[in-house]
Amino acid sequence: MAVGEFGLIDRFFSGMDAGAAVRLGVGDDAAVLSVPEGHVLHTSVDTAVEGVHFLPGMPPADIAFRSVMAAASDLAAMGAAPAGMLLALTIPSVDQGWLTAFVDGLRDASEQTGLPLVGGDTTRGPLSVTVTVMGSTPTAAYLKRSGAREGDRVCVSGTLGDAAAGLAALRGDLSISDAMVSNGLVGRFARPIARLALGESLRAVASAAIDVSDGLLADAAHIADASEVAIDIDCHRLPLSDALRALPDQDQILRWALSGGDDYELLFTLPPDAILPAGCTEIGRVVVGSGVSCAVTPQQSGYDHFKD
Amino acid sequence: MAVGEFGLIDRFFSGMDAGAAVRLGVGDDAAVLSVPEGHVLHTSVDTAVEGVHFLPGMPPADIAFRSVMAAASDLAAMGAAPAGMLLALTIPSVDQGWLTAFVDGLRDASEQTGLPLVGGDTTRGPLSVTVTVMGSTPTAAYLKRSGAREGDRVCVSGTLGDAAAGLAALRGDLSISDAMVSNGLVGRFARPIARLALGESLRAVASAAIDVSDGLLADAAHIADASEVAIDIDCHRLPLSDALRALPDQDQILRWALSGGDDYELLFTLPPDAILPAGCTEIGRVVVGSGVSCAVTPQQSGYDHFKD
Repeated sequence: MAVGEFGLIDRFFSGMDAGAAVRLGVGDDAAVLSVPEGHVLHTSVDTAVEGVHFLPGMPPADIAFRSVMAAASDLAAMGAAPAGMLLALTIPSVDQGWLTAFVDGLRDASEQTGLPLVGGDTTRGPLSVTVTVMGSTPTAAYLKRSGAREGDRVCVSGTLGDAAAGLAALRGDLSISDAMVSNGLVGRFARPIARLALGESLRAVASAAIDVSDGLLADAAHIADASEVAIDIDCHRLPLSDALRALPDQDQILRWALSGGDDYELLFTLPPDAILPAGCTEIGRVVVGSGVSCAVTPQQSGYDHFKD
Repeated sequence: MAVGEFGLIDRFFSGMDAGAAVRLGVGDDAAVLSVPEGHVLHTSVDTAVEGVHFLPGMPPADIAFRSVMAAASDLAAMGAAPAGMLLALTIPSVDQGWLTAFVDGLRDASEQTGLPLVGGDTTRGPLSVTVTVMGSTPTAAYLKRSGAREGDRVCVSGTLGDAAAGLAALRGDLSISDAMVSNGLVGRFARPIARLALGESLRAVASAAIDVSDGLLADAAHIADASEVAIDIDCHRLPLSDALRALPDQDQILRWALSGGDDYELLFTLPPDAILPAGCTEIGRVVVGSGVSCAVTPQQSGYDHFKD
């Protein structure tokens, strides 16, 4: 059912459905997208539930922005060009101020990702946000988890652990005296950026890719498993932001960088002779074997919703 | 994030991702689907929340089946051939018996619709089910709400009002002494069938189409609005099942048929010379004007989540 079932709601979500791939946007039973000839469709869905994936009281604009980016990050990990998205929003009641702020964040994320909002469903219930994203790549040129080969270099974009530190600060588990440092880390949690342009540029270059959503070690293990190889990570080469380095607890910093998740950077493997893209860091090597090894072994592994 | 983030969960949802359009199923960052050359992609999302769209305690197999069919029905209304679906499932805890039953219903619906389950996201939270469906049609040959023209005949598939009566029986608001009648009506609510084959066959024939999810009057109004025409419905021609006709309250029967929703039949308009498909009934006419008129005006209109 398209956004637009309820007159009360649909005006909030209108005007965001224009895009190169959109043939029919909001307002019919389904949205219609074109996929270029010789291309395939990529699609993924992500749900964020209040109290599980984001804290109660998180600004609605951040909830929307983060939900879109988390889903878009899966397109980035495939090297897919954005085509459109659907929003399934469940809200306890119609709060116009809340909806207005939510839509502001949604529009920001739609514009930054190039994902027009082509449809959705708004329902009443406990707050949760489900975003389905669609993108495309040439038929035979996309990034899988299964392509890593012995001798490939393991690389990651941006910096790691910031989002986990930001979440800790939001939760009150981490006190940071410098407001700019604190805001920067919180921003990495609340306003992550899906690496869509990097993903597209890696399409012809990287042998495997995944986005860092569960945490570096957990996501590296997904590549290792799918590719039937082992991954050695050099913990001394992990890219850390100045803000994270400035925090006092060095063990905690390493745990966040290895296992924090929610960074939405791209983790990818490059053949030996490929050029490392700007803004990326080589952090390890693909070797024969299975699993992920790391000089420093932390206690904590990737965030698992059903493991407490 | 693909189904498969949690080892505990993903085995329940495995083995349902094979299909003609599926190039990469469950297990990577996104699923990859092919769209035939000269075709476009159709996509829609539907959420069902416990206590809003289905009663607490509804059999999990029915929850799954109904959620898939409700979403698939939007593809039927576009005339789209099924390609694949994504499931975003939010559950309060991991109950293996519940999940096993849920997956049984999911598999039934996947097989009956021809929609392989190509990915998803399982999260912890209050029970809700969000299904995204994808299908395809030739680029210029799909059904919209906006094509109805003066003189077209208004038609509907199957029978109307059964699902609403079934829901009333489930809620204890309707007592039916005959168990077979009761089960039949409840089955129309719990196990609706998306009219995918009919939708595809109407692609070259119907001038406009929508699925009956909100209720006949509300959905006819969507066609009237989008097509800038009026729709006259002859209430004496509404197709009613024998089970519904056997109920004592004739006013209630009419209200259910006009406004009950959840039937997931197709409501469509046919040019004067087109042949009425088998199993369908002509119930009215497209005329100049706006809105929907009906000889018998009921108090109740389509189910609106935010209108109490």
